[in-house]
Amino acid sequence: MTTYEAPIKDMQFVLNDVLQVSKYSNLSGFADASEDMIAAILEEGGKLASNVLHPINQSGDSEGCVRHEDGSVTTPKGFKEAYNLYKEGGWQGLSFDPEYGGQGLPYVLAVSISEMASAANMAFAMYPGLARGAADTIYAHGTDEQKQTYLPSMIAGDWSGTMNLTEPHCGTDLGLLRTKATPQDDGSYKISGTKIFISAGEHDLADNIIHLVLARIEGAPEGVKGISLFIVPKFFINEDGSLGDRNGVSCGSIEEKMGIHANSTCVMNYDEATGYLLGEENKGLRAMFTMMNEARLGVAMQGMAISEVSYQNGAAYAKDRLQGRALTGPAEPDKPADPIIVHPDVRRMLMDQRAFTEGARAWMYWSALHADLHNKSEDEATRERADDYLGLMTPILKAYLTDKGYAHATNAQQVLGGHGYIHEWGMEQFVRDARIAMIYEGANGIQALDLVGRKLMKDGGRAWQTYFKEIDEFISDNQGNEDLKPFLEGLADAKKDTEEATQWLAANAMNNFNNAGAGSMDYLHLFALLSLAHAWAQMAKAALEKQGDGDAFYANKLTTGKYFLERMLPDAKSHLAKLKSGADAMMALPAEAF
Amino acid sequence: MTTYEAPIKDMQFVLNDVLQVSKYSNLSGFADASEDMIAAILEEGGKLASNVLHPINQSGDSEGCVRHEDGSVTTPKGFKEAYNLYKEGGWQGLSFDPEYGGQGLPYVLAVSISEMASAANMAFAMYPGLARGAADTIYAHGTDEQKQTYLPSMIAGDWSGTMNLTEPHCGTDLGLLRTKATPQDDGSYKISGTKIFISAGEHDLADNIIHLVLARIEGAPEGVKGISLFIVPKFFINEDGSLGDRNGVSCGSIEEKMGIHANSTCVMNYDEATGYLLGEENKGLRAMFTMMNEARLGVAMQGMAISEVSYQNGAAYAKDRLQGRALTGPAEPDKPADPIIVHPDVRRMLMDQRAFTEGARAWMYWSALHADLHNKSEDEATRERADDYLGLMTPILKAYLTDKGYAHATNAQQVLGGHGYIHEWGMEQFVRDARIAMIYEGANGIQALDLVGRKLMKDGGRAWQTYFKEIDEFISDNQGNEDLKPFLEGLADAKKDTEEATQWLAANAMNNFNNAGAGSMDYLHLFALLSLAHAWAQMAKAALEKQGDGDAFYANKLTTGKYFLERMLPDAKSHLAKLKSGADAMMALPAEAF
Repeated sequence: MTTYEAPIKDMQFVLNDVLQVSKYSNLSGFADASEDMIAAILEEGGKLASNVLHPINQSGDSEGCVRHEDGSVTTPKGFKEAYNLYKEGGWQGLSFDPEYGGQGLPYVLAVSISEMASAANMAFAMYPGLARGAADTIYAHGTDEQKQTYLPSMIAGDWSGTMNLTEPHCGTDLGLLRTKATPQDDGSYKISGTKIFISAGEHDLADNIIHLVLARIEGAPEGVKGISLFIVPKFFINEDGSLGDRNGVSCGSIEEKMGIHANSTCVMNYDEATGYLLGEENKGLRAMFTMMNEARLGVAMQGMAISEVSYQNGAAYAKDRLQGRALTGPAEPDKPADPIIVHPDVRRMLMDQRAFTEGARAWMYWSALHADLHNKSEDEATRERADDYLGLMTPILKAYLTDKGYAHATNAQQVLGGHGYIHEWGMEQFVRDARIAMIYEGANGIQALDLVGRKLMKDGGRAWQTYFKEIDEFISDNQGNEDLKPFLEGLADAKKDTEEATQWLAANAMNNFNNAGAGSMDYLHLFALLSLAHAWAQMAKAALEKQGDGDAFYANKLTTGKYFLERMLPDAKSHLAKLKSGADAMMALPAEAF
Repeated sequence: MTTYEAPIKDMQFVLNDVLQVSKYSNLSGFADASEDMIAAILEEGGKLASNVLHPINQSGDSEGCVRHEDGSVTTPKGFKEAYNLYKEGGWQGLSFDPEYGGQGLPYVLAVSISEMASAANMAFAMYPGLARGAADTIYAHGTDEQKQTYLPSMIAGDWSGTMNLTEPHCGTDLGLLRTKATPQDDGSYKISGTKIFISAGEHDLADNIIHLVLARIEGAPEGVKGISLFIVPKFFINEDGSLGDRNGVSCGSIEEKMGIHANSTCVMNYDEATGYLLGEENKGLRAMFTMMNEARLGVAMQGMAISEVSYQNGAAYAKDRLQGRALTGPAEPDKPADPIIVHPDVRRMLMDQRAFTEGARAWMYWSALHADLHNKSEDEATRERADDYLGLMTPILKAYLTDKGYAHATNAQQVLGGHGYIHEWGMEQFVRDARIAMIYEGANGIQALDLVGRKLMKDGGRAWQTYFKEIDEFISDNQGNEDLKPFLEGLADAKKDTEEATQWLAANAMNNFNNAGAGSMDYLHLFALLSLAHAWAQMAKAALEKQGDGDAFYANKLTTGKYFLERMLPDAKSHLAKLKSGADAMMALPAEAF
């Protein structure tokens, strides 16, 4: 009963007016991405999302995946057909290197398609999403032969991919992992062990599944310094590229989960499976980080995407459902009651979602553009700066967008009242699906620790210093733009708070590392509000320039931005206050008191 | 796999040391509630909750209720046996009037038992909870004959009860309801119509179900002024008290919901069912409010109770799960890793829950004590004051405790990482169950509107003025207690913010009612933080007095209170800032822009 329509106009506004991707025609693939081309791609993607992926979202949740006795897994009805359309449309290779069959278009454009897919059907979108992450890892760390062997079929969508990190006794702390790799005479390894929580670990969509598996080579050092990464294909690949025998990897069971029922979350058993080293021995974690960082951005996108689709359905209900009268007098006196969108608290929930989603989209695409700059720019300083930003923003995007995506899916559900709690209305599925995004690819607390414990410190704090400077420049460049003033003031204020928090951490973390940990989540949310204020200031600037067109779209954008300043940005102050209270009370109780 | 142990020591602390219920021995039933008696009752209740109700919580969720072709409904395995134990223990009548078979004990004590039941098995606790609400409504509004007919069997637990308000086209806006009541010659009515979302509408636990049904008598005025309340028993009651024929009421279907699967949420069809007027004609809504207000406190309790049980399970996992090392150096160097409770961000989630749950318990019991004062005091001024408090606090407790109960169940789930998302670990059930509490008995937005639109204004603001004065008195009475100073300062600061918000509403709501609606939820959360600050100040005072005992319990209480001041109370400022931004940006967009 839910619907989804890709917010193409909002996407175009960000791509063309805010980020002005046409200015980057020096980057490979960008010259092809004219406004017309972008429009055509977004429109086609939107059709696929609305007409193919979304209609099987609720049925996929109800039906779930089924594991058969032989270990094979069947995805819900319609998933294979939808996957074939996705594959045939060439969506998997949209931004991939043309050398391996991709179309080489900007990553920032691929990200907008990935938003659509995640909004329309999050469980479905994970299958190609994980495959793309695996392909990128092979692209970054594989030998030429490995790339030639795996990438064309993966980019064509014929084969999919997975990442295998977690074991029953180790999730976050990968140093504890036990899966063993025994070297063979032919240079391959025998992999044995059990991996859990493997998304898309086994399914019927692709002809082969290329598992990337972390394991410890016999005799390797203990801890994270002894972990290597292996390619373990489900089916061996013959010399001629055809598929051969089954490898020793199988799905032992699938998990019964809160949501994303249509994605198979597998226990994977490796029983002397043949694996091929990817990248260097004992440097597996570093290689896996390629996949994890990309996956983290993908998960951030899931948070934002679920907020968008749940918003659309909450808003549709709010315009349709008649209940009560506006506080200021009947809005539709000839009807038995007014639509509930007249009620301020219903508006509050919808405007919260809107201000978040639109700001998050601009911030997310801005970050994706930096991935393009990092990968494609010929200027080393630009590449370094882009890499700094991406490293800094990845944990913030992942944790903040998924925390808020879940909160906003809950808001949209609330708009429907009792119906929101009933399965067939589809709103509770958005909440259940969104919930996982706060957990997987590094629980959000781990993201916060990555931010304060690693990203802030890296290169003497170069990343955040450059970012703060960019904000100062934006503010000073736009002084005198009177209409932009409230946005510049909000941005300056958020920057002041974030700076103060950063200084507090610098001053207080060294004498007690727990002060950094205790403030990490508040710091992350504070930094996210700064980034959203930055995104909204950029959007407001672009909207002010276009406002003369007389299109209400731009005036609405400015109103939504004003709402962000009034109703979301004030949280910055409380995050700062909490952070500055330090670790003492938080850490004081002995463990046995819990 | 989850467990629950009633936090008896915390409950005793609130009842005996904070509220000092022994001081109220002038109220009927309180003299029986000695510390020893309280201890014995809490202990027995705790055993029932841990050993009978909780073990069928997860299985009840998995199994759900089943409706058969004849309209009968079977509850999950073990529910009937558990219900019989509950009934035989006399729990249903704990605080009910002895004239009808109750034990007449304080309501505040019954509330602690209700906390245990909701924490142990929320879906189960709803069956007796709704029955108690129906009994209270008959007690308040029934004729002597009606009371004699229904109450003894309801209080004994032999019969249960329901409330029937919602119809497909009307939930909040009861003025729209269509269920018809046609007067009969014998003084009864024929009731026809469809009610939806009827919790415990049909089941196999009790011999009879007494439905309280809102309907419109033929020819009654339109809107809420034409609504009457009727008693519609599932089975007729013969002269001798035995059960007779089936009445014309049946369960048409049960809803597939996000959670509380073990409670049957029914579509109830009334097909010329015989009903008996309860209270006055066309004054049905007022009578139903007796039930709704009590139900709202019960729902508030559900929020707090789920926070407690999810906290217990999150904390147990955090002490058990080994992953990573403390930031300050290995805490348990001889183990492969430290338990995750050493990590500040894990602590943060657990301490947030603790500071909330312990504060909420004191606040909730304090409110329940006011229900006792209202019902039992012989002093009219005391009764009025207690009624004022209850009226003011009911919407705040309902909305705040359920918003936060859900958020904290989500926090506890997060502590478990990936396992939190897996059904068998039981944490995701707490989240799904807690979610309904924000919606039913008046969605939380309606509570906020009730607060700013009705409760603040009532009797010229007498309720909040008296409450603010009580806080001032508490602060001035305790000046000079140096150890209490931070709590008094936090309380004074929260009161100042709440006062400022109240003044802002007074000044800005009259020229634009939307300003009140737009700020209603922030106002409610701000007021809740004030009440929690009040509760924590009272607890801190009691803990300081007992601290000399050397029991770490009191020191831990003070630390948790300090954590509340540092990490929760700062939100007051952002609620105030948001409220003061008014309705303009929130209400500016035309409906078609959504």
